[in-house]
Amino acid sequence: MKTIILIGANGIVGKAALTGLGKHNVITAGRSTGNYDYQVDITSEESLRKLYKDVGHFDAVVNAVGVCEYANFTEMTEKQWMNTIQSKMMGQINVVRIGQEYIADNGSFTLISGILNVKPLPYAIADATTSGAIDTFVKCVAFEMPRGIRINSVNPTVLEEAWEAHGELMPGFQPVSGTLVGKAFERSVDGFITGQVIFVDA
Amino acid sequence: MKTIILIGANGIVGKAALTGLGKHNVITAGRSTGNYDYQVDITSEESLRKLYKDVGHFDAVVNAVGVCEYANFTEMTEKQWMNTIQSKMMGQINVVRIGQEYIADNGSFTLISGILNVKPLPYAIADATTSGAIDTFVKCVAFEMPRGIRINSVNPTVLEEAWEAHGELMPGFQPVSGTLVGKAFERSVDGFITGQVIFVDA
Repeated sequence: MKTIILIGANGIVGKAALTGLGKHNVITAGRSTGNYDYQVDITSEESLRKLYKDVGHFDAVVNAVGVCEYANFTEMTEKQWMNTIQSKMMGQINVVRIGQEYIADNGSFTLISGILNVKPLPYAIADATTSGAIDTFVKCVAFEMPRGIRINSVNPTVLEEAWEAHGELMPGFQPVSGTLVGKAFERSVDGFITGQVIFVDA
Repeated sequence: MKTIILIGANGIVGKAALTGLGKHNVITAGRSTGNYDYQVDITSEESLRKLYKDVGHFDAVVNAVGVCEYANFTEMTEKQWMNTIQSKMMGQINVVRIGQEYIADNGSFTLISGILNVKPLPYAIADATTSGAIDTFVKCVAFEMPRGIRINSVNPTVLEEAWEAHGELMPGFQPVSGTLVGKAFERSVDGFITGQVIFVDA
């Protein structure tokens, strides 16, 4: 049994991840206080450092959060771009950058990207660009992770649980179940793979 | 004959680009004053807007600059990451974001990435990650560019002209000539392709 920190456990992707991590000791973390075992803001180095110190021993970090702003490219402001970059890109990189100091030997990080970098949609250019950054980051940084630490990203299409909210804007997309996405997280955490983008698409 | 703004004309990649753009009216721009027709800092929205307004009519923008910081991942600071993101990623996105307001109908943007996102090397994780972001950006944003505007990126391996400076850190890499890289820029500017990553590798 591993001790896993799951950041964003109450979101749709977080709940999906949880379905694949059930046999482990899962410590939940998230932005709002009260709903999680620990409170954390991934855009803050100090907040991440406090989380890792407070938890103590852990074998894996699964991140299921990353704020994106949505707009037509011609209308998207630099502020909207930077909000997305600070959270979904730099925030996730910081989860690993700070976390690698504290995680157990042979531990693992699993980040989240999203299918829009390979299946583009209107309004989603910042989401797509930062997903491409995260998938690239994972593929390249794996070679220099110390102490046997692994890193992968899960790149899912839209989840069935999000279809009612987003399906109208995603013509021709086939949603997948949260349980299937959970298996991708399980494969990252309980497998031996590293530097992999685990696509979950239909 | 097209009017082309070449940002970073005096760098190694800029000089390579110039070899492919010789038949056009090339207006040069760069960070230092005196060496270029226009001075511009791509990390500043105001500086880019001034450049485009001052030039007036132009048919293409070729960007050959993007500052990257290099370090081992475990030692790279958030500041080093953000310096790289602000220039090579957000800076290049801003070249397009602001430029699309001013560029002529059926114009084109050509950005620069770099082979390290598909051939990783030590110290280059921020370079690789932002190159992956730029390649993804170009592939996805092409679908929503207005007025027939095209966009591509050139993703070269190390240039012969840079081999003396960087070759020692790039075992097993085969440098390519600046002239060959120039042809990639020419293919982007004078072709009809859009949303393409033009790899130049040997």
